[in-house]
Amino acid sequence: MPEKSNFDRIIIGIDPGTNVMGYGLLGINGKKPALIALGVIKLSKFDDHYMRLHRIFERVLGLCEQYLPDEMAIEAPFFGKNVQSMLKLGRAQGVAMAAALHRDIPIHEYAPLKIKMSITGNGSASKEQVAEMLRRILNIPADRMPEFLDATDALAAALCHYYESSKPIMQKGCSSWKEFIAKNPGKVKM
Amino acid sequence: MPEKSNFDRIIIGIDPGTNVMGYGLLGINGKKPALIALGVIKLSKFDDHYMRLHRIFERVLGLCEQYLPDEMAIEAPFFGKNVQSMLKLGRAQGVAMAAALHRDIPIHEYAPLKIKMSITGNGSASKEQVAEMLRRILNIPADRMPEFLDATDALAAALCHYYESSKPIMQKGCSSWKEFIAKNPGKVKM
Repeated sequence: MPEKSNFDRIIIGIDPGTNVMGYGLLGINGKKPALIALGVIKLSKFDDHYMRLHRIFERVLGLCEQYLPDEMAIEAPFFGKNVQSMLKLGRAQGVAMAAALHRDIPIHEYAPLKIKMSITGNGSASKEQVAEMLRRILNIPADRMPEFLDATDALAAALCHYYESSKPIMQKGCSSWKEFIAKNPGKVKM
Repeated sequence: MPEKSNFDRIIIGIDPGTNVMGYGLLGINGKKPALIALGVIKLSKFDDHYMRLHRIFERVLGLCEQYLPDEMAIEAPFFGKNVQSMLKLGRAQGVAMAAALHRDIPIHEYAPLKIKMSITGNGSASKEQVAEMLRRILNIPADRMPEFLDATDALAAALCHYYESSKPIMQKGCSSWKEFIAKNPGKVKM
């Protein structure tokens, strides 16, 4: 079992869903990201909607207590679903977020297109292509690759957050300090 | 402060929202419902979406630990909102539900129309009419009536759940035992 002290920083990635929820834990040493854990929470065995939400909350809380992540990255689609499915997805996201917030872990969310772009350079990459890129980048042995692509999607969210948070400030959509200050008034101490 | 032992049963009602979240606690002695507590969690002072979700979780968890409710009743609209607002509402519902589930409190949800119907007999009653009916039914002194109608809406969800759960089985949409068994196969022990 990896311990907190082995890594400078740990990111938990979550791919929320009401049938299967994926999770992936990424450890960073210096500038080198490494796989810590990867898996899914299977929910389809529970008929009851609240049992599913309860399971998500307790498992995500358990992962936060076991691995002590510093941040949570979550895959969050915002479009293309109907009102009913968005409410369900919002609840699944909400209980996963509650577990992180209860442990004072800050949350960062990324749209699926952004994650695919960040990992593969192609916003319309397939889940299999994302999984294959992760396998190469993190040197994951073939026998540790998961059966469910929800797990690699979650890990991809974590790696995307690592890349995004490691970018120099100037790359974050600003071409000058003047523009950065205009866009981030709260970050400037006078 | 009312103690658990004063009541046979306690129901916490929640009216979730991302600007204001209402709550109401109802105590039952025999067949008599009584007001325990009533209020709102104001969220608009937090700019950050996650701060709001965190606040909802911690406050609802706090209410569950303070009053030890046996059940949660939640007002849950399913229609008439767009995909974006449903995702936000789903998250707010999800974190409130996570607090109840974490304390093993079962959740029951009711559509706004059902709650209005149950309290006032009129599915299109205004929030003010619902509040006025609650004031009369529960003998709430005028100075304890809240400023925000989100609080009375939450209390209405709790009272609606009390009424619904007190109905004889035959009134729950079934006209015969045959129909009841057909509709509730899991409840029948052979």
